[in-house]
Amino acid sequence: MKKTRYTVAVIGATGAVGRESLEILQERKFPLEALRLFASKRSAGESLPCQGREWRIEELTPGGPFEGIDFAFVSATDAISREYGPRLAEAGVTVIDDSAVFRMDADVPLVVPEVNAHALASATRRIIAIPNCTTTPLVMVLKPIHDAARVKRVVVTTFQSVSGTGAAAMDELIEQTKALLSFKEVKAEVYPHQIAFNCLPHVGSFGEGGECSEETKIVNETRKILEEPQMRVTATTVRVPVLRCHSEAVNIETERPLTPNEARALLSAMPGVIVFDDPVRKLYPMPLDAAGKDEVFVGRIREDRSITNGLNLWIVSDNLRKGAALNAVQIAEAIIARA
Amino acid sequence: MKKTRYTVAVIGATGAVGRESLEILQERKFPLEALRLFASKRSAGESLPCQGREWRIEELTPGGPFEGIDFAFVSATDAISREYGPRLAEAGVTVIDDSAVFRMDADVPLVVPEVNAHALASATRRIIAIPNCTTTPLVMVLKPIHDAARVKRVVVTTFQSVSGTGAAAMDELIEQTKALLSFKEVKAEVYPHQIAFNCLPHVGSFGEGGECSEETKIVNETRKILEEPQMRVTATTVRVPVLRCHSEAVNIETERPLTPNEARALLSAMPGVIVFDDPVRKLYPMPLDAAGKDEVFVGRIREDRSITNGLNLWIVSDNLRKGAALNAVQIAEAIIARA
Repeated sequence: MKKTRYTVAVIGATGAVGRESLEILQERKFPLEALRLFASKRSAGESLPCQGREWRIEELTPGGPFEGIDFAFVSATDAISREYGPRLAEAGVTVIDDSAVFRMDADVPLVVPEVNAHALASATRRIIAIPNCTTTPLVMVLKPIHDAARVKRVVVTTFQSVSGTGAAAMDELIEQTKALLSFKEVKAEVYPHQIAFNCLPHVGSFGEGGECSEETKIVNETRKILEEPQMRVTATTVRVPVLRCHSEAVNIETERPLTPNEARALLSAMPGVIVFDDPVRKLYPMPLDAAGKDEVFVGRIREDRSITNGLNLWIVSDNLRKGAALNAVQIAEAIIARA
Repeated sequence: MKKTRYTVAVIGATGAVGRESLEILQERKFPLEALRLFASKRSAGESLPCQGREWRIEELTPGGPFEGIDFAFVSATDAISREYGPRLAEAGVTVIDDSAVFRMDADVPLVVPEVNAHALASATRRIIAIPNCTTTPLVMVLKPIHDAARVKRVVVTTFQSVSGTGAAAMDELIEQTKALLSFKEVKAEVYPHQIAFNCLPHVGSFGEGGECSEETKIVNETRKILEEPQMRVTATTVRVPVLRCHSEAVNIETERPLTPNEARALLSAMPGVIVFDDPVRKLYPMPLDAAGKDEVFVGRIREDRSITNGLNLWIVSDNLRKGAALNAVQIAEAIIARA
């Protein structure tokens, strides 16, 4: 007999994404049998609400126990994913992992349900990865364009909010801003430089070719999700003093012509995407408006006349929702629907 | 006999660029005979210091008088440039104009002295335009790359500070930030939306094809300054909650190959450009560091492997200095040197 209610674990329950997961499980009336919240020792014993009940936070330790858990949403650190991902999977748990640890593994599907739910069938290790919070909105916009006109090349520049780093980074932006406005000393601990009233062309860590890890992720993950291992993508990723929501300026070259109006029609028909594009009336996506929303917003859709088949557009999405917690919950829902 | 000291007018003396002009005239020990400061009636009668003297602010009226002025730095509104530019030129003044009014006129040179000082010879109308504050740093970086490897196409995304709009916009960002931190109502007057903790993909006004005027300016002005009327350039311009300095993510395709190291060498040799590029040590240009500096800073120089001859790089420059007041003063200096 098919299960109708599920036991869900949230690993990293007190983090920015973990807390968002609880809100989303509640909003979407996810069929919860029970909720297991895991965090560090510091938070153990406290409790958090979801679906009208209070759930006690447990300390995450190798002993678990993890038996009986159906789905685990893992959003903590790469080290925790590396250790607990396989451990949970061995205990029979379907792991939906938000880290970069497993994303590029051939036997781990990297899934945005609206784009490649079919890839869930290949989750032989019982680990499913969700993409980086800048990749998810990007592939949701690229997918219908690629299907219609074949994407030849993408140049993307990101404007990433501090919540992508976590709750401590949000506090740091606020504290730095307060300090500046009262002429006090600014402390930078989460980021290497002041983020308040500044831009840092640096997300993640730097590798050999001068790219930062976020830039490499966008390229590799986009190719994997769209199943185009040679797709030509280049990225520049920048942290901006915004609390929530990532924005992306995207330049797209297609093989076949596609007018801005055709692109608007394709994107309007894409589940999870909202076209918000009337700049003369000063309507375009902004981080402020997209915060707390489930959809990926796209606007500033216009011809790029510097090439034959070129489009420019502007994407904004809530990095904690579709960029992380929502996408993970949607994957669990898709697995349930497939069962 | 050649003059050795000059009478300079600053039109818009109390604005963000006007005040910067006074600082720059002082720092560079510009050979001032006298300074004439013009502003609206509101500021007339007040005075501002420069080179150890106080200069009274006059109300700008059609009657001037403008005779005897050698150079006028005009940085107010398009309407003021349109009215007073020709009037000053007719009175024998060399007008160095910061507005968009004359930039694309065939008989008005559009000058960044390090890039195209030779164009000053064609100032038959005695009006010289300075480029938009995002174009100036861009062409300073493109010029040596174009000379060495021929630029085929440029995709640029800007991160523009509020000081590009003026002093009132700087106040608005500060006031909105204060209001948000104290849970008070946020007022947006200068911009159509809240700029604090937000990004607005909107600089200037929107035209027919969905481009905003700042995007069109970057394309047209870059072509004019580099004397490449067909150069393929596309831009997305975004206002970010930064007080001062504009940043630009630039993707460049060249005809001939150019390694990042070759680009670094070329850019290091370019007057007015500083290569600041050691990301592993967390050194890259940032608005915070570039504020008050004369140079254009470039970093994050790396290969774009999505095309055969591709480079990505990141530019930061002080929009009030090289982007406006400094470039204007340098033009006056270049004219004096040529005389």
